[in-house]
Amino acid sequence: VLRECDEAGLDLMAFKVSSEAYLDEYEEKLRAFGLEVTAVAAGEQPGVGRRISFVAPTGHRFDLYVEMELSDNGPMTNNPDVCQQDQRGMKAIRFDHCLLYGGDVDGIKKVFEEILGFSTSEVVVDDDTGMIIALFLTCSNKAHDLAIVRHEEDGKLHHVSFLVEDWTSLRDAADIMTRYDISRDIGPTRHGITRGQTIYFFDPSGNRNEVFAGGYSFYPDNPLRVWKASSVGKAIFYYERELNDRFMTVVT
Amino acid sequence: VLRECDEAGLDLMAFKVSSEAYLDEYEEKLRAFGLEVTAVAAGEQPGVGRRISFVAPTGHRFDLYVEMELSDNGPMTNNPDVCQQDQRGMKAIRFDHCLLYGGDVDGIKKVFEEILGFSTSEVVVDDDTGMIIALFLTCSNKAHDLAIVRHEEDGKLHHVSFLVEDWTSLRDAADIMTRYDISRDIGPTRHGITRGQTIYFFDPSGNRNEVFAGGYSFYPDNPLRVWKASSVGKAIFYYERELNDRFMTVVT
Amino acid sequence: VLRECDEAGLDLMAFKVSSEAYLDEYEEKLRAFGLEVTAVAAGEQPGVGRRISFVAPTGHRFDLYVEMELSDNGPMTNNPDVCQQDQRGMKAIRFDHCLLYGGDVDGIKKVFEEILGFSTSEVVVDDDTGMIIALFLTCSNKAHDLAIVRHEEDGKLHHVSFLVEDWTSLRDAADIMTRYDISRDIGPTRHGITRGQTIYFFDPSGNRNEVFAGGYSFYPDNPLRVWKASSVGKAIFYYERELNDRFMTVVT
Amino acid sequence: VLRECDEAGLDLMAFKVSSEAYLDEYEEKLRAFGLEVTAVAAGEQPGVGRRISFVAPTGHRFDLYVEMELSDNGPMTNNPDVCQQDQRGMKAIRFDHCLLYGGDVDGIKKVFEEILGFSTSEVVVDDDTGMIIALFLTCSNKAHDLAIVRHEEDGKLHHVSFLVEDWTSLRDAADIMTRYDISRDIGPTRHGITRGQTIYFFDPSGNRNEVFAGGYSFYPDNPLRVWKASSVGKAIFYYERELNDRFMTVVT
Repeated sequence: VLRECDEAGLDLMAFKVSSEAYLDEYEEKLRAFGLEVTAVAAGEQPGVGRRISFVAPTGHRFDLYVEMELSDNGPMTNNPDVCQQDQRGMKAIRFDHCLLYGGDVDGIKKVFEEILGFSTSEVVVDDDTGMIIALFLTCSNKAHDLAIVRHEEDGKLHHVSFLVEDWTSLRDAADIMTRYDISRDIGPTRHGITRGQTIYFFDPSGNRNEVFAGGYSFYPDNPLRVWKASSVGKAIFYYERELNDRFMTVVT
Repeated sequence: VLRECDEAGLDLMAFKVSSEAYLDEYEEKLRAFGLEVTAVAAGEQPGVGRRISFVAPTGHRFDLYVEMELSDNGPMTNNPDVCQQDQRGMKAIRFDHCLLYGGDVDGIKKVFEEILGFSTSEVVVDDDTGMIIALFLTCSNKAHDLAIVRHEEDGKLHHVSFLVEDWTSLRDAADIMTRYDISRDIGPTRHGITRGQTIYFFDPSGNRNEVFAGGYSFYPDNPLRVWKASSVGKAIFYYERELNDRFMTVVT
Repeated sequence: VLRECDEAGLDLMAFKVSSEAYLDEYEEKLRAFGLEVTAVAAGEQPGVGRRISFVAPTGHRFDLYVEMELSDNGPMTNNPDVCQQDQRGMKAIRFDHCLLYGGDVDGIKKVFEEILGFSTSEVVVDDDTGMIIALFLTCSNKAHDLAIVRHEEDGKLHHVSFLVEDWTSLRDAADIMTRYDISRDIGPTRHGITRGQTIYFFDPSGNRNEVFAGGYSFYPDNPLRVWKASSVGKAIFYYERELNDRFMTVVT
Repeated sequence: VLRECDEAGLDLMAFKVSSEAYLDEYEEKLRAFGLEVTAVAAGEQPGVGRRISFVAPTGHRFDLYVEMELSDNGPMTNNPDVCQQDQRGMKAIRFDHCLLYGGDVDGIKKVFEEILGFSTSEVVVDDDTGMIIALFLTCSNKAHDLAIVRHEEDGKLHHVSFLVEDWTSLRDAADIMTRYDISRDIGPTRHGITRGQTIYFFDPSGNRNEVFAGGYSFYPDNPLRVWKASSVGKAIFYYERELNDRFMTVVT
């Protein structure tokens, strides 16, 4: 996730691609799908190689790239310790996923599944029409790398999520949120979708963030998990079994 | 906690006393305080020795006894295993404490401190008047064995609490509550008071129960912890930092 | 992992392949590599489709297949609960990986990387010669799906590993091992390699099994982690920082 | 635990007493028992009031005192947070207990039970003679505040123990021990005695220390738990079920 300004909301989300050949293939297929693709030169962001950039049917900008430099204090590779130094704060391990809001959920599903090779792990559907209301996409063994909720406005961000070690890390993160008077949305709780454990909170810019732990291992042969909209409370907040008004807001 | 009927609410709470001499001493002091003390014969409840029974200034019945038989499958004492069998359900270890609601908080404080030897670990006080709104009493190294909230009606029960191993046990308990569609009040969360970790839920009779873990070790020389009523949200629910309407109800 | 007899040791390890086309491609490439490939008809094992079978350079049999039926009580897919029923015993979630012992480590590395598309996440190498002593292969975001240790005899099994939820699950598993007097090798401890948390124990057939939790998320662009043989103690048992004699034995 | 020099070993262990009257009573009873009691003036250690000091039958010095000043950054008492600042290192919460080695176990049992009001929670006894080999004493709801092992030399220290939050804290402590190359004795594991969870490690002075979590709540009416010496492995290390040679050493 590259941020280009300090206002609330998402500028773009970027995925690393395994080869230049794939980058070229994706560019061609995205254009063939009817999306406009623009090139971003290497170095436009420090340490990031050339990118291709497109706006998905939900109005969100996605970039794809092959090369990114490691930071100076990159991972230990020789007899690596579990941690290189004492962990601090909420002990986020890495970026995990985003939840975005926009209109054309079926369109973005098509782009990510058919062009970019993602799988759909779970959906929330309208009880009557079967229309997809929420979509969970993965390109890994994680239960989701990207989630989309159907929304009347395009290009909206719901939250950005960071992985922590486990349920106990979430308790410690919650302690920190109260101590520093950080605005909390909900949690510690669990999602029915992904089975992940979670706290949502707001940063000073007004973005909703998540610390997230656990969740099942997804494999591409997993049967699709389907939640009826009438059970969406349990799908989102497995312990509360109902949504709260604050959670329903998007960031911008 | 002895229950004599299956309606919601508390019939009585009982404490075990270390000797008959103390039972006699307490009886005398309770009478001298102006409370009526009645005798309950040994065997009136199976396995329970003679009791003395009194109604505290908040309208709650408390019994004191010296003898209680162990169950047939009492604790292992010879080379005892950590558990005797696979644990099931929410894995409650033992009863922990009660929270009761009633009017004369200062009266019950006096009885439990001056006669029964309890200590006050924490209080919630009115910001302006200093009047005690909530009182946390302990006769052990636990942060509370009994809690009282000032309330216009006497003799009310807020919840009965059961100890579980740790924060991870609370996650597992919450999973069970959703799977069996058990009515949940709030949690997993943490109390500012006691620092214990908690879920509240309702049983089929309508009683609020708690599964509780952790909390600090109390020692009688600990300075009194004082919460202002204006911070009561954080005192009760350290993560939410506000009370919810449902939590404010008493059981009967 | 399919077991065809109840003696200690591994008969074969099987991987699911995403399409028949890949199965054909792998068959051709394995033959071109010089390995003998045999066909196993659909239904030879109940619920398993056609397989191709080969013996890797380390003397271990691997099967590849596309189709496998779900069990009757397969995963919930409609408003799925986190668990379908109370968990019992050590609460294994799924098979995780195997560690095999054999001679031609470089040969099996070539087969799994170049033909089957695995990545090497970590290696233990001889300090002086750089010869690979232990090899950790992954075809997922897990730090390993298969591990190989150089050994004078081919076709040996070290252990089969099962995933549990977290570090707390390992404590509970250890409690069960002692209660039921299950022969334990080592743990709860942590691996330096994978950062996974672990207990090894022996089943009644004499096989070493592992319950395993955590570990980092592997991505194919991760730099190779290299452990010197002089640090192998810390690599294998991060807390003990030394191997034990019992751990060095293979099962058959 | 007051340390008066930086060599390995214990100078003295001190207990806080609730009143001067008890201090006087204990002095008299200790003398009547035949022990020499010496007075230590207030201020001999900064912030500590007058003490009485005696050498127990096992050759260990114990001090008793009533007054000790709180540190400048003592506990928060007004709307107290769960933590006042980010925790660091192994996150010890408080001192927990000591294990001492000495000859006259029956003598120290008599002193601590009959004079100082401790209870014995558990013992390890010789299978044949019933002689107490290890003694676990408590003056609280903790399973032990002081433990004694029968040993040919008097006045020896085995370890000093510090409380941490839970089993997960022990994993984090073990990670730190390896990262900083701290000499570890054993753990993470569990004790059969107390059910506490544990790691033993050595500090630079050569003292064995313990980080300890959990354990049952002791009440004075608990039946005595008795371990046969033939089961001492399980009693001490519930997972390993055997002692290690290193553990059997005393510090000085």
